[in-house]
Amino acid sequence: MRIALLGGTGDIGQGLALRFARDTDHEVLIGSRDPEKARDAVDTYEENLESRGADADVKGFANEMAADRADVVVLSVPPYYAGDTVEAVADNLDSDTILVTPAVGMQGDEDGLHYHPPGTGSVTQLVAERAPGEVPVVGAFHNLAADALSDLDNELDLDTLLVADDDDAKETVRNLANEIEGLRALDVGPLANAAEVESVTPLVINIAKYNDDLHDVGVKFN
Amino acid sequence: MRIALLGGTGDIGQGLALRFARDTDHEVLIGSRDPEKARDAVDTYEENLESRGADADVKGFANEMAADRADVVVLSVPPYYAGDTVEAVADNLDSDTILVTPAVGMQGDEDGLHYHPPGTGSVTQLVAERAPGEVPVVGAFHNLAADALSDLDNELDLDTLLVADDDDAKETVRNLANEIEGLRALDVGPLANAAEVESVTPLVINIAKYNDDLHDVGVKFN
Repeated sequence: MRIALLGGTGDIGQGLALRFARDTDHEVLIGSRDPEKARDAVDTYEENLESRGADADVKGFANEMAADRADVVVLSVPPYYAGDTVEAVADNLDSDTILVTPAVGMQGDEDGLHYHPPGTGSVTQLVAERAPGEVPVVGAFHNLAADALSDLDNELDLDTLLVADDDDAKETVRNLANEIEGLRALDVGPLANAAEVESVTPLVINIAKYNDDLHDVGVKFN
Repeated sequence: MRIALLGGTGDIGQGLALRFARDTDHEVLIGSRDPEKARDAVDTYEENLESRGADADVKGFANEMAADRADVVVLSVPPYYAGDTVEAVADNLDSDTILVTPAVGMQGDEDGLHYHPPGTGSVTQLVAERAPGEVPVVGAFHNLAADALSDLDNELDLDTLLVADDDDAKETVRNLANEIEGLRALDVGPLANAAEVESVTPLVINIAKYNDDLHDVGVKFN
């Protein structure tokens, strides 16, 4: 499969790119609004992967072209760009492309971060609303600390939570997530259950803020 | 210390009573609106504890009397009773009594449970608002599955998350929670951070609903 990471030069995009490239046989496409920036990021990722003896099958493109070539498109962009990015690549998506959204709306104050969803109830549902009707949308990878993913020396022992209305698309993303070493995908039902998944993201950041011995906090359910 | 579990005949009250009685040296007071019901519950808990060779220091009272005698008062009542229960025992609380609230507002539909906080932002903050001004309030024990607690054969490996504006009260509850075997208390800052803590409760119930191999789901941060 081909996995496109739109906004793949950002922190969560980098983490997912490195893990997918190292742990799976899939082709990883880095998308950016600026294709030059995407190719620069690819150079850095390849250097990192090759220094570890990992096969680096990563390419850089403009977001539209990355989306056009991919089977799975991950919207690894900040939440306030998520809707616009979907619309920018809408012509490059179809019913065979799975759109994956890890973005979460948050607002900070002196106490910490707070969950701040859009009027649709969650960013995941906003993405589903803005995507062409035939494109299946899966919420995934919301609660992973970017730094924990990007540091390939760090052995993961984490869960990621999936929401989707399309069961086949969810199954594909579940298998994909499970291919990342140390990551376990759990089903949390339809898109309507996305808000409680997303709100774990400000929570884990607050836990890192208030507990000196915890950094890049992730979550495991048992 | 004396720990009162108001509504201690309910499922989360039972779980906390059994764990505090078995794992700590503190005295456990079961409170109920009906003191007869509290004493009946105590009989059941004592039978369970004694069958395991555990010292059972548990007594049953009306909520008001349990609160009056306790150093730590846990509001283990359903969320829609939390405010009224605080007011019912308000005269029995003072600045030396720590009020602990584990209640979470949820609403269910066919998809699952959804976080449904009151207008104050969280049940934890609602309790703080309804409590007498001098009484320190700590949010804790929100995300523990009652059945997992109540089954003393079940070895816990769980976190519980604490929010409070009063650092001394938080520290007391932190130590208390850490005395329960297999439970680790983590600090999540002030009461203003309660909503993200509470919303983990519908999430873990949804995870149990959609993953056949997971029951009585709890959470661990790493």
